[in-house]
Amino acid sequence: MAVTDDAIARLREMIQRGELVPGARLPPEAELAEGLGLSRNSLREAIRALALVHILDVRQGSGTYVASLRAEELLDSLAFALEMYRDHDSALEVLQVRRILEPEATAMTSTRMTPPVLHRLRTLCSSIRPDDPVPDLVRHELDFHHEIARTAGNAYLGSLLAALHSPTVDASLWRRLAQDGKTGETLDEHRLIVDALAAGKAELARYHARTHLTHIEQALRGSAEDEAGPDARGEGQRHGRPA
Amino acid sequence: MAVTDDAIARLREMIQRGELVPGARLPPEAELAEGLGLSRNSLREAIRALALVHILDVRQGSGTYVASLRAEELLDSLAFALEMYRDHDSALEVLQVRRILEPEATAMTSTRMTPPVLHRLRTLCSSIRPDDPVPDLVRHELDFHHEIARTAGNAYLGSLLAALHSPTVDASLWRRLAQDGKTGETLDEHRLIVDALAAGKAELARYHARTHLTHIEQALRGSAEDEAGPDARGEGQRHGRPA
Repeated sequence: MAVTDDAIARLREMIQRGELVPGARLPPEAELAEGLGLSRNSLREAIRALALVHILDVRQGSGTYVASLRAEELLDSLAFALEMYRDHDSALEVLQVRRILEPEATAMTSTRMTPPVLHRLRTLCSSIRPDDPVPDLVRHELDFHHEIARTAGNAYLGSLLAALHSPTVDASLWRRLAQDGKTGETLDEHRLIVDALAAGKAELARYHARTHLTHIEQALRGSAEDEAGPDARGEGQRHGRPA
Repeated sequence: MAVTDDAIARLREMIQRGELVPGARLPPEAELAEGLGLSRNSLREAIRALALVHILDVRQGSGTYVASLRAEELLDSLAFALEMYRDHDSALEVLQVRRILEPEATAMTSTRMTPPVLHRLRTLCSSIRPDDPVPDLVRHELDFHHEIARTAGNAYLGSLLAALHSPTVDASLWRRLAQDGKTGETLDEHRLIVDALAAGKAELARYHARTHLTHIEQALRGSAEDEAGPDARGEGQRHGRPA
């Protein structure tokens, strides 16, 4: 494997030194392997690995190109990786980051609302009901936050927020909300956010987004306590939830 | 390459379904390849790719294991990718995300200060001077923000903030600050943050961190305008900089 590590390092250097620029086509495999003093097998493994993290772009029948290297595309590799984590502490930490970022993204969005965006948000809110099945609620949740994040006007922030959503974590969250009879409240919070956005009130939108994320975090903590027993998790902040 | 894509998908499924758990050792290559109906070459390429994004861990002479899959380790793959971007809009977008996250991380840190952390921060601030060479200023910048981020008590947030620092972007930033004669001001801002942390004043620490990041963003915008000419960048928000 050390040979492939070397091949990866050599290709990265070529990109970092600007010998290979975004969009450039790599030389033919045989030529590149010879130029770098590598076996074709090692080179092929290195290309595969760099394609997985969106640094190279392998186009069937056309060749291998340097990808755009735009931050938001590189973030896809993060989404890929985060999808796989199953550690509950990580899930809470990730949610805490969402709780910092989403209120700001929502406030940024309030200044960039257009009739089509508002229409899509209203449609999302009116086409979901508190007793819909959990997969539908999760789909709504993802679409709702994605619409807001990509309107915020920072592609990197949008991609990062998308990457922070995990379908697995969201499913456990909405199961918990359903079990507590709180899906209605949570969907109402979405509507409050949309109303603030529609009115162009950045501070109010930020406030409702923060409240929403705090409730979501409480639900995720609650489902962790259910799984682990009430005394199993002593660390971290506890939030009281009004009965 | 399609065969390797398939191999990657099969390994991901095994992890997502819990057939392979974090820390588990993969079956011998020949056995796994046969079980999945794959060639050993495809399997090897898939393993290499998944190792690059920290999902598998290849230990020379011992075998291949499923990695811890903790979010902060997976984030290393993001740092790896971000190091390569060279697009200036992306750099500004990333900095905007830092401007959202770092004031919160700083406020979180203020409640978790210990004498050793305070000592390290004070030492960092007293061992750097405004006219030190740019590489030293960049090293100070990275160490300073890293110390605060990792004290904030959220490993994921700490890793994310570390990944958002790009040595290339930081170097262009500090060159600009040096050129404008503003390195002294910027280092003073670090001291104000430390003083607020030492006093346990979360709001004040957040305020100074936000001011600091806003100045950093202005410097990065300034260096972009220098490169592109004053009228080359019409989009986005402009910040006035006092003369």
